[in-house]
Amino acid sequence: MKLISGGVCAAQGFRASGIHCGIRKNHSKKDLALIVSDVPAAAAAVYTTNLVKGAPLTVTKNHLADGKAQAVICNSGNANTCNANGIEIAEAMCALVEQATGVPAADVVVASTGVIGQPLDITPIAAGMEPLTAGLSRDGSGSAARAIMTTDTVKKEIAVEFTLGGKVCRLGGIAKGSGMIHPNMATMLVFLTTDAAISAAMLHKALSSDIANTFHMLSVDGDTSTNDMVTVLANGLAGNPEITAAGPDFTAFMEALNTVTVQLCREIAGDGEGATKLLECVVTGADDPQTARVCAKSVICSSLVKAAMFGSDANWGRVLCAIGYSGADVDVHKIDVSFRSPKGEIPVCRDGAGIPFSEEKAKEILLEKQIEILVSLGEGACGATAWGCDLTYDYVKINGDYRT
Amino acid sequence: MKLISGGVCAAQGFRASGIHCGIRKNHSKKDLALIVSDVPAAAAAVYTTNLVKGAPLTVTKNHLADGKAQAVICNSGNANTCNANGIEIAEAMCALVEQATGVPAADVVVASTGVIGQPLDITPIAAGMEPLTAGLSRDGSGSAARAIMTTDTVKKEIAVEFTLGGKVCRLGGIAKGSGMIHPNMATMLVFLTTDAAISAAMLHKALSSDIANTFHMLSVDGDTSTNDMVTVLANGLAGNPEITAAGPDFTAFMEALNTVTVQLCREIAGDGEGATKLLECVVTGADDPQTARVCAKSVICSSLVKAAMFGSDANWGRVLCAIGYSGADVDVHKIDVSFRSPKGEIPVCRDGAGIPFSEEKAKEILLEKQIEILVSLGEGACGATAWGCDLTYDYVKINGDYRT
Repeated sequence: MKLISGGVCAAQGFRASGIHCGIRKNHSKKDLALIVSDVPAAAAAVYTTNLVKGAPLTVTKNHLADGKAQAVICNSGNANTCNANGIEIAEAMCALVEQATGVPAADVVVASTGVIGQPLDITPIAAGMEPLTAGLSRDGSGSAARAIMTTDTVKKEIAVEFTLGGKVCRLGGIAKGSGMIHPNMATMLVFLTTDAAISAAMLHKALSSDIANTFHMLSVDGDTSTNDMVTVLANGLAGNPEITAAGPDFTAFMEALNTVTVQLCREIAGDGEGATKLLECVVTGADDPQTARVCAKSVICSSLVKAAMFGSDANWGRVLCAIGYSGADVDVHKIDVSFRSPKGEIPVCRDGAGIPFSEEKAKEILLEKQIEILVSLGEGACGATAWGCDLTYDYVKINGDYRT
Repeated sequence: MKLISGGVCAAQGFRASGIHCGIRKNHSKKDLALIVSDVPAAAAAVYTTNLVKGAPLTVTKNHLADGKAQAVICNSGNANTCNANGIEIAEAMCALVEQATGVPAADVVVASTGVIGQPLDITPIAAGMEPLTAGLSRDGSGSAARAIMTTDTVKKEIAVEFTLGGKVCRLGGIAKGSGMIHPNMATMLVFLTTDAAISAAMLHKALSSDIANTFHMLSVDGDTSTNDMVTVLANGLAGNPEITAAGPDFTAFMEALNTVTVQLCREIAGDGEGATKLLECVVTGADDPQTARVCAKSVICSSLVKAAMFGSDANWGRVLCAIGYSGADVDVHKIDVSFRSPKGEIPVCRDGAGIPFSEEKAKEILLEKQIEILVSLGEGACGATAWGCDLTYDYVKINGDYRT
C-alpha cells in the first residue's frame, strides 16, 4: 500500500468540483461541492447518533437504503437542520443534481454543514449547478475539500493505492470537521471513494467496524453534531473480483480504509477549532479493547488535560483524574503515564503515583505540535488510540461569535 | 425560613478559623481551615465517584463510618492525591487536630484541595495548628471559607434559620469549587453545619437525596475531581426533638438544606474558573425527573453552548444539539427554547424549529450576568435545573498554567 495524490478523485471514475455559490457571504469561501462517479457505486454510510438530525441525513439514509449511490452534493454555511422545510430543500438539492448530471436523485448523497436553525435558500444552489457541474474534473478533490470547510483552516484529503486480486485499487477521501466533533457518532463529514469492487453489505461492514477505532475515537470539543456522516462509494472500476465475504481481500481493503481514516482523524483533530496541538492518547495494557477506548477518549475529552497541553504543562494528575471518572473498570494503582513528542519521551507517573522528572525536559517535549499521552493500565494486552487537540483561547473566540 | 449571616458558624456550638500556614507560596492566601463543634455531632458525607480518590477521602470515610464527627480540617494548595504517603499525611492531620483541640482523631473530617500528585508536607500544617486553634471563633466562617479556596475568586457561605418542633434551628455552610467541577460526584468541597437534632441515618438520607438535584446538577468544566466531598455535621444544640424518621420535621429540614445547597450551587457555578456568567438551564415538561436532569446537564455541559453564552449569542441550535446527544429519550420536534435574564425573556425555538426573533433583544438579554436557558420538552410534568457557567478565555488561561 502506498500514499498517492488525488484525494476523493484518486479512484478511477470519480470527478469532483467545488465553487462559491453564495450561501456563505464571503466570496472567497467555496460553499458547494459535488462528487460524481462515472458509474453507479456500492455505498455505505454512518450517521450522527444525535437525536436532532439534519434533514440531509434523513434524505441520504433513504437514498442509500438500496446500498447504491453515484453522486454526493454538499454545501457549507448552513446545516439545514431544525428547519421546517429541511427535507424539501435537501430533496431539491438531489433533484438539481439529477437535472445537471443525469444521476437519478435517488442515487445522490446530500449533506450540509454550518449553522443550525436558519432556513436554507435553494436559490443560490440552483444558480450554482451549472458552474458546479462544468467544473467537475479528475483534479477536483481540492476544490471539493475546500467547499465543505466551515471553521476548518486547512483542507483535508488523502488517498492510497493497494492491490486486490492482482488489480491495482485506490481509496481516497476528503473530510471536514473542526468544531462540534465528538465520538459516539459519525463525527463530521467524510466522503470516501474507491474503485475497488466490493458489495454494499461488505462495504457497510468495513465502514462500521473501522469507525469504532477511528472517527468514534476523535473529539475536538465533546459536542456531538447533528449533521455528521461518513460515506464511502465503491464503483468497482479497478476490476478486481468483487469482495462479497471476509477473507484476505477484505482484510486488505480494511487496511487501506484504516490508513485513510486514521490520517483523516489526525488531520481533523490537529485542525480542531483553535487548536495549536494534535493530541493522541495511546492506551495499552487494557484487559479488553472497550476499556482502552473508554480511557483514551476520557483523557482526550478532558477540558483540563486539553488546557494543560495548551500550556505545555506536564500535569499528569489530570490524566489520571480523567481515567478515574471515565467509568472504565481499572486499578488506578497500576497506571503508568508518559508524554512523548518528536523531542523525546518522559515518564511522569508510575503505579498511579508521581515520580520525579525534569520539568524542563517535560516542557521541551510538550512545546511540540504533536503530543502523545501514553497510558499503560498494567492489566492485559489490549489497546486503543484517541485523537484530540488542545483547548485554547481561539476555541473560545471562534465559538463565542460563530453565528453572528 | 429566613436567610441569616454566620455561614458555617451560624448554627449553635460551631466555631471556625482559617490561616495561612505556608502550603501556598502566596502569603496573602489562607491555606488551612478548621471547623469545630462544641459537642459531638451526627455526620454524613458524599464523595467523588472518581476511581482516583484523594487520600483524605479514604480517611474521612473511615472516620464517618460511625455516623459521628466533631471537627473538620481542610487545606488548600495541595490535593494530597496520588501520593505514596497520602493516607499517612491525612491521618497525621487528624492527629494534629486531636492534639490541638481534644477532639478524637477518629471524629475528624479531613479534606485537601489543590494540585494532584505532589507530596504534601505536614510541617507547615503542624506549625500552623497553634494559631489555627487560637483563631477558632463564632465569627470564623469567612476565614475558613477563604482558606479552602483555590482558583475561586469569592468566598462562598450561606445560612438559614428555620423551626423544628417549636425550636429555632440553623443550617449553614461554606463551599469551594471553581474548576474540575462536574456532576456525577460530590462535586467540590462543601462543609455544612446545623444545630438541628437529627439522626445520622436521616442526615445521610437528607444529604443523599438533596445532592441529586443540587450538586450533581452542577458543572463548570465536565471534569469530575478526585477529592471532592460534601459533609454535614448536626450537633443537636437547637434542642428540637431528634428527627429519626420521615415526617413534617424531616421535610422542613430538607427544605432548609435545599435552600442552602441551591444557593451554594449558584455561587460555585457563577464563580466557575474564568466565568463571566452564571447559566441555569431549567427543563420542564419531561415525562420523568431523570430525563429532565439528563437534558439540563447536557445543555449546561456543552462547550459550544457555554462559548455562545460567553459571546451573548442566542445560538439555540446548540441547545437542541446538546439535548439531542444527551442520551435522553425525547421528541425533538416538541422542544421549545427561550432565553431569560433580568432584561426579559425571548422565545427562540418552538417545536424543534427556529422562530423569528429580534437579535437585538436577544443580545440585550444575553449580555446580563445571569442567564436562564428555558427548555420545555412538551411531554409531561417533570422538571430539573442545572447550573453552569460560560466558557471564556480566562478558563483556558487559568488551566493552561495552573500548576506552574
